[in-house]
Amino acid sequence: MVNTLLLPELRELLTEQDTETLAAVLGDLHPASIAEFSEGLTVEETWQLLDHTSIDRQAEIFEFYPISKQVELVSGVGRDRMGRLIEVMSPDDRVDLLRRLDAEVVESLMPLVARAERQDIRMLLSFPEGSAGSVMTTEYATLPASVTVERAITLLRQQAPSRETIYYVYVVDDTQRLIGFLSLRDLILARSSAVVEDIMQRDVVTVRVDQDREEAARELARYDFLAIPVVDGQHRLVGIITHDDVIDVMMAEATEDALHMGGVTPIEENYLDAAFTTVWRRRALWLSALFVAELFTFTALASFEDAIQAIVALSLFVPLCISTGGNSGSQAATLITRALALGHVDTKAWFRVLRHELLMGLALGATLGAIAFVRAAMTPRAVLGNANPWMLALVISQSVAAICLWGTVVGSMLPLAFKRLGFDPGYASSPFVATFVDVTGIIIYFSIASLYLL
Amino acid sequence: MVNTLLLPELRELLTEQDTETLAAVLGDLHPASIAEFSEGLTVEETWQLLDHTSIDRQAEIFEFYPISKQVELVSGVGRDRMGRLIEVMSPDDRVDLLRRLDAEVVESLMPLVARAERQDIRMLLSFPEGSAGSVMTTEYATLPASVTVERAITLLRQQAPSRETIYYVYVVDDTQRLIGFLSLRDLILARSSAVVEDIMQRDVVTVRVDQDREEAARELARYDFLAIPVVDGQHRLVGIITHDDVIDVMMAEATEDALHMGGVTPIEENYLDAAFTTVWRRRALWLSALFVAELFTFTALASFEDAIQAIVALSLFVPLCISTGGNSGSQAATLITRALALGHVDTKAWFRVLRHELLMGLALGATLGAIAFVRAAMTPRAVLGNANPWMLALVISQSVAAICLWGTVVGSMLPLAFKRLGFDPGYASSPFVATFVDVTGIIIYFSIASLYLL
Repeated sequence: MVNTLLLPELRELLTEQDTETLAAVLGDLHPASIAEFSEGLTVEETWQLLDHTSIDRQAEIFEFYPISKQVELVSGVGRDRMGRLIEVMSPDDRVDLLRRLDAEVVESLMPLVARAERQDIRMLLSFPEGSAGSVMTTEYATLPASVTVERAITLLRQQAPSRETIYYVYVVDDTQRLIGFLSLRDLILARSSAVVEDIMQRDVVTVRVDQDREEAARELARYDFLAIPVVDGQHRLVGIITHDDVIDVMMAEATEDALHMGGVTPIEENYLDAAFTTVWRRRALWLSALFVAELFTFTALASFEDAIQAIVALSLFVPLCISTGGNSGSQAATLITRALALGHVDTKAWFRVLRHELLMGLALGATLGAIAFVRAAMTPRAVLGNANPWMLALVISQSVAAICLWGTVVGSMLPLAFKRLGFDPGYASSPFVATFVDVTGIIIYFSIASLYLL
Repeated sequence: MVNTLLLPELRELLTEQDTETLAAVLGDLHPASIAEFSEGLTVEETWQLLDHTSIDRQAEIFEFYPISKQVELVSGVGRDRMGRLIEVMSPDDRVDLLRRLDAEVVESLMPLVARAERQDIRMLLSFPEGSAGSVMTTEYATLPASVTVERAITLLRQQAPSRETIYYVYVVDDTQRLIGFLSLRDLILARSSAVVEDIMQRDVVTVRVDQDREEAARELARYDFLAIPVVDGQHRLVGIITHDDVIDVMMAEATEDALHMGGVTPIEENYLDAAFTTVWRRRALWLSALFVAELFTFTALASFEDAIQAIVALSLFVPLCISTGGNSGSQAATLITRALALGHVDTKAWFRVLRHELLMGLALGATLGAIAFVRAAMTPRAVLGNANPWMLALVISQSVAAICLWGTVVGSMLPLAFKRLGFDPGYASSPFVATFVDVTGIIIYFSIASLYLL
C-alpha cells in the first residue's frame, strides 16, 4: 500500500527546494523506505527528488520502486540521465527493467552505457524469462585458489563496494571454472597464513543457467544458502542468485499460482491502483470464457430433458452431483500440485499417484454415496412425484460415488499431465477443468439414472 | 522426494560397520544432502549412522530432517542422548521440535539440558505459534557501541562459531536495548581505528516479538535483509529471524493458502508417504462436510419444484447460474486475498473495495447477462415447452447479472471480514463460501423467474 502520509510534507520540501533536508532524508533512510513513501509522487516529482542525492544512491532507491513505476519513470526522463542510472544499477534489477521496455527504447539506451556493462546486459537479456539466468546477478565476489587468507581479505575489501554480497566467495580457475567455495565466516575464522585452496569447500552446489528459476530457488532454500552459484555448460561461473531474489521468485510464483487457481490473469499493478477498464476487460474476458464453457452444462442437461420431464425430482439433485465432482477434483488437484511444487512427487511417479487416487476415489466415493443414499431416501413424497424413493436413492448414491471417483482421478492426473507437457500444473485447479468435470458429471448422473429409472 | 538411490549402499556401509567411509561421508557432504539421502533409513539405522560423527554435526544433520522424521527419531532413542543433541541444536529448530512432542516427553528432556539452554527453550516456547517469537533464534551477534572496529572484528571472531550469522551485528546498550546495527561488510570496509557507534546505523528496522511471523517475513523481504531483529515491548533485543527461516515461513504460508483454497487440511508428511487411512479420514471429512452443506441446494431447489414442474426448461439453466456465482466470487476473493497478502490493501480500505467491486460486479454482470440473453433466446422450441422464449431469455440474463454482482461483492468482502475477525482471509476462497453462493444463487434465480413467469 502506498504510504500517503508523508507525501504532502515531501511535496512541500520539493516546492521549497529545501536541498538540505531532502539530501538528509535521501541519505539517512533505507532505500526501500524512501521508495515506499515517495511512490505516490508524479514522474516529474520523483526525478526532482532523486536529483538531491548521488547517482549510486539514486539507483538503490530506483530499484525498490515497483517495476510498473520504474517503466513510467523511464518514459519521463531524458535518455542521457537514464543511461547513467542504468550503468550503476545492479545487473539483475536493470535487466528486469529492460525486459519490460520497448525494444526501441532499449536500443536507444544501450549506446549510452559503458561497454563492459553493455556486454553484461546483453548476456543477461539472452536468458529466457523464468530461467535461473534471468534472475541472477553478475556482481559476485571471486578469489584465486592460491592466495593466503590475509591476501584474500584484502582482495575482498577491494571487491566489496561493487559486489552484491561478499559473504559468499567463489573460487575460480584461470578459465573462470568454479572449483570451490568459501564463506566470509570461514575466512575470518581461519589462520591468516592459511591458503584458500586448503580451506575452501570443493563440493559446491550449483544450478545451471538454463534451469528453471523455481528449481534454483528450491535448491537455495533446501540448503539455507545466502546465494547459489549459476554455471554454464562448461561449469564456468556466470552469476549468483541471492536470497532476496529467491524470496521475490517465491512470492511471484505463489501469486501466480493463487491467481491461476482463482481464474485471474496476473495483474502487475496494485489492486486499487490499476485502471478500472483494464481490470474489467481482464476479469470479464475470463468470466465470459468460463461462462461460455459452462453453457455446455445446459446442452448436456437439455439432451436429458425427457428424463427430467418424466421425473422432475432428478433435476433437484443436479447441483449436488456437480459440486461433488468439483470438490473432489479440486481437492485432489490441490494436493498433487502442492506435492509437485514441494518436490515430493514428480511426473514419473504418475502410476503410483493414479493407483493411490483410484483407491482414494473409491473410498471417498463410498463415503459420500452413503450420505447421499440416506438423504435421497428421505426425499418427501410430494417432491418425488411418481418415482420410487429407493430406486431414486440408489441412483443418487451410485452417481455421487461414480462422480467422486471420476473427479478425484481427473483432479490428480491433470496436474501431472500439465507439468509433463510443460504447462503450470496449477492450471489443473482452474475453473475450466471444473467446467469439464461439471459437464461430465451431468452425463454420468443421467446415464446412471437412465439405466435404472427409464 | 526421498532419494532412494544411495540407500542400499548406505545400509551396506552400516552393516559392514565401515566407520572410516561413513565418517568421511558425514563430514564432507552438506548436512542437507546427508539428511535427504538418509531419510529412508529406519529410526534405528538413522541413529547408527549419526553415531559416526560429532554431536555438533549430528545436530546440523538432524535439523534438516522433516519435522515428522525428527519426532519419530526422538521416540527411538534414549533420553540422555536426545538431551545432549537438543543442547547443541539451534534454538529455533529445537523449539520447533519440542512444540511437536508430548508435554511429558519435553519435561523428561528438560532436566538433561544445561541451565542456560533450558531458559532459552522456555523463553522461546512461551511465544504463540505463528508469532515472530516462535520463528526467531537467540544466536545473534552483538557488540557494545564503544569498541573500535579492530576490537569488534576480534569480538566477532570469538562469537562466530556459536552464532547463526555474523554478517549482521546488532549494537546494544547495558540493558540489552537495541541502539544500532552494522553489517560485517561495513566493518571490513571501515578504518580499523573507527569506533562502532560512529559508523553504525541508528535507524534499525525491527519487528516486535508478538507480531505475526508473516509480517516479520514481509518486512525482511521488503528490505532485502539477511536477518531482521526481534525486540520486546521495551525495545530490548530478544532474537533475530534469518532469511532462511523467512523462506520457510513463506513456503509454509503458501502451502497453507493453497490447501485452504483447495479444501484440504494441511498434511505435514510427504504426499505419497502419509498413511492411506489418515489421508482418507481427513479428505473424507472435508468432502462430507461440503457435501452436507451442498445438500441445501437440493432443499432450495425442492422449494421451487412447482416452478420447475410448470417450466422444465428453467431447471436446465441451474448449473449455469450456480457456476456464475462461484466463478465471479472466487475471482474477486482471489484478487482481494492476494492484495491483502502483498500488503496492497488493508481491512480499513473495505469501503473503497466495496465501491470498486460493486461497480465491477455491475460491469461484469452486464457482460455475462448479454451473453446469457443471446444463448437463452436461441433455446430450441422443443426444449422450451410452453414458455415464451423472450421472457425466458430476460429471466436468465437478469438472473446471471444479479448473481454475478452478488458473487463479486460477497467474494470481495469476505476476505476482508475474515481478516478483520482474525481468520485467514484465504478461507473466503473455500468451498464452503462457494456452497453459500450456490444456494443463494438458486434463490436469486428462481425469485426472478417467479416474478416474470408465474
